[in-house]
Amino acid sequence: MIDSVAQHAAVAMILQECLEGVEHIFERQLTSDFPAVNQLCRHVERYRGKMLRPTLVVLCGLAASDNPSDRRSVRDEHLTVACVAEMIHMATLVHDDVLDEAETRRKGQTVNALRGNETAVMLGDYLISNAFHVCSKVGDPSINLQFGEVTNTLCEGELIQLHHRDDTSLDEATYFEIIRRKTAALVGACCRFGATLSGAPDPVIRALDRFGMAVGTAFQIQDDVLDLAGKEAVVGKSLGRDLQKGKMTLPLILLLAHAGAAERAFVLDAIARRDDAALRGAAERSGALDRARQRAAALVRDACRELDVLAPSAVRDLLHTLAERTVSREF
Amino acid sequence: MIDSVAQHAAVAMILQECLEGVEHIFERQLTSDFPAVNQLCRHVERYRGKMLRPTLVVLCGLAASDNPSDRRSVRDEHLTVACVAEMIHMATLVHDDVLDEAETRRKGQTVNALRGNETAVMLGDYLISNAFHVCSKVGDPSINLQFGEVTNTLCEGELIQLHHRDDTSLDEATYFEIIRRKTAALVGACCRFGATLSGAPDPVIRALDRFGMAVGTAFQIQDDVLDLAGKEAVVGKSLGRDLQKGKMTLPLILLLAHAGAAERAFVLDAIARRDDAALRGAAERSGALDRARQRAAALVRDACRELDVLAPSAVRDLLHTLAERTVSREF
Repeated sequence: MIDSVAQHAAVAMILQECLEGVEHIFERQLTSDFPAVNQLCRHVERYRGKMLRPTLVVLCGLAASDNPSDRRSVRDEHLTVACVAEMIHMATLVHDDVLDEAETRRKGQTVNALRGNETAVMLGDYLISNAFHVCSKVGDPSINLQFGEVTNTLCEGELIQLHHRDDTSLDEATYFEIIRRKTAALVGACCRFGATLSGAPDPVIRALDRFGMAVGTAFQIQDDVLDLAGKEAVVGKSLGRDLQKGKMTLPLILLLAHAGAAERAFVLDAIARRDDAALRGAAERSGALDRARQRAAALVRDACRELDVLAPSAVRDLLHTLAERTVSREF
Repeated sequence: MIDSVAQHAAVAMILQECLEGVEHIFERQLTSDFPAVNQLCRHVERYRGKMLRPTLVVLCGLAASDNPSDRRSVRDEHLTVACVAEMIHMATLVHDDVLDEAETRRKGQTVNALRGNETAVMLGDYLISNAFHVCSKVGDPSINLQFGEVTNTLCEGELIQLHHRDDTSLDEATYFEIIRRKTAALVGACCRFGATLSGAPDPVIRALDRFGMAVGTAFQIQDDVLDLAGKEAVVGKSLGRDLQKGKMTLPLILLLAHAGAAERAFVLDAIARRDDAALRGAAERSGALDRARQRAAALVRDACRELDVLAPSAVRDLLHTLAERTVSREF
C-alpha cells in the first residue's frame, strides 16, 4: 500500500517534470525577434489549462514503455510531439474565439474588437505554422504526415459543423462524426504517438488510440453538457455559446429525439429564440441532459476497458483516473 | 531565330503541362468525403490566378537542371512542392479576405462574403493543414522544416503589419521588412526549392533565392500601387482595402516622406478620412506613385541580374519576362 502511494507520487512527479519540458519547448518555439509577436504569444500561453493532450502523450508513452516508472522512458520526441498537439489545440482555441467574436460583432462591435479578430486569425495561423515547424524538427516524416492527417480531419469536423449550423434536424450519427473529427481524432493521436514513440507493439498502439478517441469524445460531450447546464463562474468561460452559434449539441439532439409534438414545438421555438434557460429546463426535466451524461460515462467505461492491454502500473491507474475525471469535471 | 521561337514554345508547353500536374495534385489533395467541404474547395480553386509560385518552382527547377528544355528535368517533387506553395498562398488569400473584409476576389465573391467569416477562417486552416500534409508526402524532413520556417516568417510579417495598423509614422525599413516576410520569403523559397530539387550547386540556389525575393518584393509593391491607383474592373478584386484597413503602403510612405508641412497635414487628414481619391491625386501629383513604381522596377532589374548565374536558355528568358511582367501588370 505504501509502495503504491509512493509509485503514484513518483509518476505524478515525472508527469509534472515532462509537462514543464513541454512548456519550455512551447515557449522557446514561439520566441520571435519581434516584441509585438512575443507579447501575443505570452498572452496565448495563459490559455493553457488542463494540458490534456500533452498529458496523454506522456502517460501513454510511459505506460507503453518497458519501464513505466522511469522518467527516461519519456523521450525528447514525446515532449516535442506533446508540444505540437498543444499548439494545434491552442490554435483551434484562438480561432474559435474569432468565431465567437464574429458573433459579438453582429450585435455591433467596436473597432477594437475588430482589430482583435484579425490579430486572432493571424495568431492562430502562426500557432499552426509553428506546430508544423516544431514537428518537422523531430525529423520523422511519418509523424508529420500523421499530424497533417489529424489536422485535416479536425478542420473537416469544424467545416461540417459550420455547414450544419442551425440545422435542428442534425442526427446523432452526424453529431458523433463531427466530434470524432474535431475533438477525438487529435486526442486519439496523442495516445497513439505516445505509445508509438515508446516502441509499443501494434495491439497496444491501437488500444491506446481507441482509448484516446473514446476519452476525447466523452470530453466533448461533457463540454456540450457544461455549455448548456454548467455554472459560468465554475467553468470559467462564456457559456451558452453553442446555442448562440446555432450548434446542435447532444443534449439538444436527445431532447428533440424523445420529445412529443408539443414539446418539440416548444424546443424548436426556444432554439430559434436562443432561449438558454428554457432549453436547460426542458433538457433537465426530460432527462436529455442525463442521457447525454450517461453516453459520456459509457464512453469512459469503454475507454478504461482498453487499458486492460497494459500491465498494471501506477501510470495505468492515472490514465483511469484521468478518463473518469473527463466526465466528472465541472469545468 | 526560328530555333529560339521553337525553344520558347517548347518551354511554354512544358510549363503548361507541369502547372496542370500541380492543379491535379491540388484537386486530389482537397477531395474530401464531405460534399460540403468539396464545394468550398472548388470555390477556392477559382481564386487561382497567375500561379506565380508554382510557375517559379517549375521554371527554376528547369533552369537549374542539366537539361532545361526537357520535361523530365521537372520531378514529381517539384510539382508537389509547387502545390504546397500555392496552397499556402491560397490560405493567406482566404484569411486576408477575412481580415480585409473583402467582398471580391478574382472577379468572384470571397468565401467570407459568401459563407461567413467562420467558414472562411476554417477553410483557410484546412488549406494550411493540407499544404503541410501534402508536403509531408515528399518524405524529406528538410522540406517540411523549411516550409515551416517560411510560414512562420509569413505570419510574423502579417502580425507586424497588423501591429502597425494606422501607424502613419511607419518607415520604409519596417515596410520592407514586413513585405519581405509576408510576400517575398515564400516567393524566394519557391525559386530555392525549384533549384534545390534539381540538384543545383549552392551559388545557383542562392542566386535564384535572391531572384525570388526581389521579384516577390516588387510584386507586393505593384500590388500596393494597384490598390491605390488601379481600376477595380481590371484588377478584379476589391481595391482601396489597404487604406480602409489602415495599412501604410509604399506610395503613402513616400508621399509623407517627401511632403512639406502643409501637404503632410493634408495627407494625414486624407488618411484619417480614408479618402482614397484625395490620396491617389496627391500621390500622383507629388510623384510618390512613380517613385514606388521605380522602386519596383529597380528590384526587377536586381532580380534579372541574378539570372546571369544561369546559362542562356529559353527558360532563363521566360524568367526574365516573368520578372518584368510583375511590375508592368495592371492586375
